[in-house]
Amino acid sequence: MQLLKTIKEVRDAVAAARRQGKIIGLVPTMGALHAGHGSLIQKARADCSFVVVSIFVNPTQFGPTEDFNKYPRTLDTDTRLCESLGVDCIFAPLAEEMYPQRNLTWVDVEQMTKGLCGASRPGHFQGVATVCAKLFHIVQPDRVYFGQKDAQQAAVICRMVTDLNFPMEIIVCPTVRERDGLAMSSRNRYLSSEQRKQAVCLYQALCGCRKMVEQGIISTSQLIAQINQVITTAGVQVEYISIVDAQTLQPMTSLTADALVALACRVGTTRLIDNMLIFLNPPRFQI
Amino acid sequence: MQLLKTIKEVRDAVAAARRQGKIIGLVPTMGALHAGHGSLIQKARADCSFVVVSIFVNPTQFGPTEDFNKYPRTLDTDTRLCESLGVDCIFAPLAEEMYPQRNLTWVDVEQMTKGLCGASRPGHFQGVATVCAKLFHIVQPDRVYFGQKDAQQAAVICRMVTDLNFPMEIIVCPTVRERDGLAMSSRNRYLSSEQRKQAVCLYQALCGCRKMVEQGIISTSQLIAQINQVITTAGVQVEYISIVDAQTLQPMTSLTADALVALACRVGTTRLIDNMLIFLNPPRFQI
Repeated sequence: MQLLKTIKEVRDAVAAARRQGKIIGLVPTMGALHAGHGSLIQKARADCSFVVVSIFVNPTQFGPTEDFNKYPRTLDTDTRLCESLGVDCIFAPLAEEMYPQRNLTWVDVEQMTKGLCGASRPGHFQGVATVCAKLFHIVQPDRVYFGQKDAQQAAVICRMVTDLNFPMEIIVCPTVRERDGLAMSSRNRYLSSEQRKQAVCLYQALCGCRKMVEQGIISTSQLIAQINQVITTAGVQVEYISIVDAQTLQPMTSLTADALVALACRVGTTRLIDNMLIFLNPPRFQI
Repeated sequence: MQLLKTIKEVRDAVAAARRQGKIIGLVPTMGALHAGHGSLIQKARADCSFVVVSIFVNPTQFGPTEDFNKYPRTLDTDTRLCESLGVDCIFAPLAEEMYPQRNLTWVDVEQMTKGLCGASRPGHFQGVATVCAKLFHIVQPDRVYFGQKDAQQAAVICRMVTDLNFPMEIIVCPTVRERDGLAMSSRNRYLSSEQRKQAVCLYQALCGCRKMVEQGIISTSQLIAQINQVITTAGVQVEYISIVDAQTLQPMTSLTADALVALACRVGTTRLIDNMLIFLNPPRFQI
């Protein structure tokens, strides 16, 4: 496995693989890898003949009051995990390699970035879309793997790729959970042991919502009220609970199309998100 | 020569050329081809082994009061010119092919799009940058050819390609002029014969500016005043005359770095632009 720091090195490595007729898979990450990332890498490994994992804590997607500086950086552990999963190449650039001068060019996806996490994180999805465009141009993969855990990110990137005709396929993989249901996240390590126990309420609230939908309830306000009650009863602070169209991320009053149930909470000072997809035909849940 | 209308067809044609080891050149145009476009095509033909000319009057770069509907469309003549210049493939999509649904994703280049033509054409460069990103992803060329005539467009696209790491080279070719110096433009055909005579004042004003710089004048306000006088004396209405840093397009008070002298005028209702580059070391002009 190669550990590469420069754009030129990774382009050369991918070009060599391409000359051998290989299919290139990219798993973009911010490092601090966990089993969720592991599942993306395994999927890429199964689908592609050359797997690149990018590890880059992208400054342009953090707000001024967010956790950019304290975001976990665990490159040694990440490298061992990638090696064990058969990754061909890690691309771990410095910020100066990705942003050698002031960046003037930004990619924005309208409408879909206004609500959900976009409401409390202005500029976040602009930073995400822009760095993904950069990574896609650097690696030029055939397939890119994202986790459903970051549902809005996945939907925004899918739309960007469609709207701008990026010549690649986006594959969104299911959320990986701890035994008790907590969605894997690099930020879970911020939780105290008591907060860790509280945090499971996000998953439990989504399971409760699934049960209500199975019982025929389609009013999103009723579903949201129930989710809100489960979470606040657990002593966790709700930032938002939304039920939106799964493709466009626009709010729905009742379940008339494939839907995304998405929520963000604060457990202590740690911000956690989770979500569930509801497909209508045939009725199916992805959680 | 192939005349292709769909994204799939042009991707297949380029992929076939790529498999033969060919170097792909793209000349993006809005059609109504003239000798200026011809020079871009000839340069691409000399540099590349597979030349694609795109012809697409992009609706998203026209303002609501601009000339989108009356912009000249001359596909038959354009096709003959391309054929005669040895083009391999014309890509001439319908708007529905390029924008099959409402476009939500936009590429913006900050700062550089605020002044010059950006001031009177809000949204224009967002439309240009976005459609170029789309065309670059569809054709995936090695080299793309733009004319210096549209100086701000060329600078904006160069910056976009650098900032977003597009894997291609942008080549900016000199402005091609009529015998009397008028810059070639698809919009010249809007001019009456009297307006056509007036229009040469843009070129003459730039030549006068060159002479003043050769004489050692480096104050941009002095240079601009002289240009303004030449143009207004010819009875032509000035929209802007600016002298800016050639890379960043930020205004300069004196010629202390490579500069772009750019101007836009109205001859009757027809909007014409022209420009001159001033290089300092060694002293050189490109007009």
